[in-house]
Amino acid sequence: MISPADKPIMFSDKVAILGPGLLGGSIAMALRDRGFTSELALWARRPEAAAQIRTMQLPVDVSTNLRRCVADAGLVILCTPVDTIVSLFKKICPMLRPGCVVTDVGSVKSALVHEMDEIAADRVRMVGGHPIAGSERAGIEHARADLFLNAACILTRTSATDEAALGLLTWFWELLGCRVSVLSPEEHDEIMARVSHLPHLVASALARLVRTREDAAAAWCGNGFLDTTRVASGSADLWTGIMQANRHEIVRCLSELLEDVKSAKEILEQGNPDGITSFLHEAKLARDSVQALRNHVTDQS
Amino acid sequence: MISPADKPIMFSDKVAILGPGLLGGSIAMALRDRGFTSELALWARRPEAAAQIRTMQLPVDVSTNLRRCVADAGLVILCTPVDTIVSLFKKICPMLRPGCVVTDVGSVKSALVHEMDEIAADRVRMVGGHPIAGSERAGIEHARADLFLNAACILTRTSATDEAALGLLTWFWELLGCRVSVLSPEEHDEIMARVSHLPHLVASALARLVRTREDAAAAWCGNGFLDTTRVASGSADLWTGIMQANRHEIVRCLSELLEDVKSAKEILEQGNPDGITSFLHEAKLARDSVQALRNHVTDQS
Repeated sequence: MISPADKPIMFSDKVAILGPGLLGGSIAMALRDRGFTSELALWARRPEAAAQIRTMQLPVDVSTNLRRCVADAGLVILCTPVDTIVSLFKKICPMLRPGCVVTDVGSVKSALVHEMDEIAADRVRMVGGHPIAGSERAGIEHARADLFLNAACILTRTSATDEAALGLLTWFWELLGCRVSVLSPEEHDEIMARVSHLPHLVASALARLVRTREDAAAAWCGNGFLDTTRVASGSADLWTGIMQANRHEIVRCLSELLEDVKSAKEILEQGNPDGITSFLHEAKLARDSVQALRNHVTDQS
Repeated sequence: MISPADKPIMFSDKVAILGPGLLGGSIAMALRDRGFTSELALWARRPEAAAQIRTMQLPVDVSTNLRRCVADAGLVILCTPVDTIVSLFKKICPMLRPGCVVTDVGSVKSALVHEMDEIAADRVRMVGGHPIAGSERAGIEHARADLFLNAACILTRTSATDEAALGLLTWFWELLGCRVSVLSPEEHDEIMARVSHLPHLVASALARLVRTREDAAAAWCGNGFLDTTRVASGSADLWTGIMQANRHEIVRCLSELLEDVKSAKEILEQGNPDGITSFLHEAKLARDSVQALRNHVTDQS
């Protein structure tokens, strides 16, 4: 954590948010909600997107001019899709004030952070970030000032990480309501493959199973099916970027899942009720334990 | 549908509910809520369960005496776990009033209905049923009078089915708020494998993947993980009965899923973004379509 005396300095600086989606829009709203009064710039690539956001009257300067948006900013937050973050960073790096703190909100870290460390070099201070507060509803029209309340946010530390910048971003995300943890990019990606990327892939496969029976599924599914497959409604484009960038971890994790599911299939083929009970009981213990730990974590914050 | 003139006759008859769980308790509460004033008997196997229910002051006569509970009933509803329904029916059949209508609420139908048709023979009128209104929270303490509002309920028709009994039960479940459909036991089981049993198995496998990382999963999972795995918190014993009874359909459906997931794995291994997008996009279309059809169905009822 940085010392309290450092905090006001950061927040008298201009903040630039690049990418007008759910996360970018929610950061802007949350910052204003928490009393941030300095300059706040939001960059949108497409003029139509910028025009639409202007009609929403967000407390932020919207522009399609990248150079103007990042000029003199003390903090720049990259909120574009995962597969565009590195190239956008490369593009803006020469436009940034020396020493500027840069972070991102991408759901994958190793494929981005190491390359961005090299691009940042000694010019700016880059720290990878991931607030875990998405939704299957993308787009700034779903942005909310309280999106980050009680959400987890992971920041990454590498050998190139500037500790003061890491401290500043910890402060920043805590200000927006997050519980902040610091992990290596590799730890982040291994955990996210397991609790987010693979579940998304599998929920999609379950949704694909009803492709030819959508009417039957709609008429006769319970809330269980709707919950289990909910994330499959997320944007295919956004999730392609995530899965492509973390595909090695996802494949590793998927192999583990396939082994386990095949063992369940054998148990069913044998008609072995004790085996089924044991499979389901271990799953229930794990799920109940995650929920209990989770409730504990959320109660404390 | 039976003629309106038949309805009051049914509902002046005694109703017996066997099995004091979420569904049995909710049926009792819903019946009273809808103005049913005749005798309503609830059977619990264990004296402790009966004693506990008596403290809940449900509007129902609780007893552990099976013979007394079903005596003179015009409608008997079997609400015990799937793997106990057939043997319980066999046991009560000689105690029933001739012509009595009998149904069940089991999540699997072919493994039960054909055997029960034989047991019922010409003595009583048996119709398989499945109100799709469970929850991962089992037990009568979660029972609610509105559990069946807008829920689907499937009744099964076989060559042995008495049409008047089928009509009566259609009337009954509609009274409790359900949208009723009639399918063959085999159609029911094929659809349920796809929209309920297999999703439960797969959600359980996803929960099992975090067995050794429960603390990490709890700290860093989003709502996506919690929703995708929620059903895995259901009772392992209840679900063993369901999976064992419908295992042939579940295995068939699981083979289809495994093929699809393996193709996704190959696409990831190749690093083929277009392939990933297409996989996810087809899933999103199916999931969105189910949700849209579902909203339409629910809005109409």
